[in-house]
Amino acid sequence: MASLRIREAKEGDCADILRLVRELAEYEKLSDQVTISEEALRADGFGENPFYHCLVAEILPAPGELQGQGIGSKIITKVAEVALDKGCSQFRLAVLDWNKRAMDLYKALGAQDLTEAEGWHSFRFEGEAMREMAGR
Amino acid sequence: MASLRIREAKEGDCADILRLVRELAEYEKLSDQVTISEEALRADGFGENPFYHCLVAEILPAPGELQGQGIGSKIITKVAEVALDKGCSQFRLAVLDWNKRAMDLYKALGAQDLTEAEGWHSFRFEGEAMREMAGR
Repeated sequence: MASLRIREAKEGDCADILRLVRELAEYEKLSDQVTISEEALRADGFGENPFYHCLVAEILPAPGELQGQGIGSKIITKVAEVALDKGCSQFRLAVLDWNKRAMDLYKALGAQDLTEAEGWHSFRFEGEAMREMAGR
Repeated sequence: MASLRIREAKEGDCADILRLVRELAEYEKLSDQVTISEEALRADGFGENPFYHCLVAEILPAPGELQGQGIGSKIITKVAEVALDKGCSQFRLAVLDWNKRAMDLYKALGAQDLTEAEGWHSFRFEGEAMREMAGR
């Protein structure tokens, strides 16, 4: 039986993190939006005031089929523990509306779809719009 | 004519920030979701690793009618400048689907509605769900 360990990411994980980011984007059909490099992941996550925090799930021995092992809910549970330890009153996840498996999991774990329930939309300003506003 | 100055928030602004948070929530018909205190705003924003950063717009002398002065687009432009200075490749805003004035402003400034264009939904895990997952 596979054993699962969830730990904080180290700087040396960045190559694997980037690979997983790319695999997720491929699944989401948004590969063209992955422009970040391993170097940027290292700088952003492991400097003095990190822009992001990251957990890594290690599965040993890696089973051929990862689905149905409850790994997703264990990772989200770990996020909840970290968030409570840091004094957060809530946390949010973004999910694509056709990703029914993910949405069902989040709902089963007690999350609410704020877009459906309250009408929240996410607006993105990209580099070109940012530079145009800033006159750069 | 009113003059506008946008500056970084100081810890002493927290009482005014909380007042503005409450006024925004009232406009959004979500007042029951404002549970944060002035003390928590001070602790979260002005410690060693702040959870948030905040800009304050000072308008002098305060006109009776704030709309139509372009204050919103000036604040968003300032956010774009700060984001570019910090090396961000994008930034996002959350807006309610009935707040047409805000959505029109964001679109006019070059933002894209990701919920409409790609189907992104925002899921929220609240304290009760977090504690249940974590077994606390």
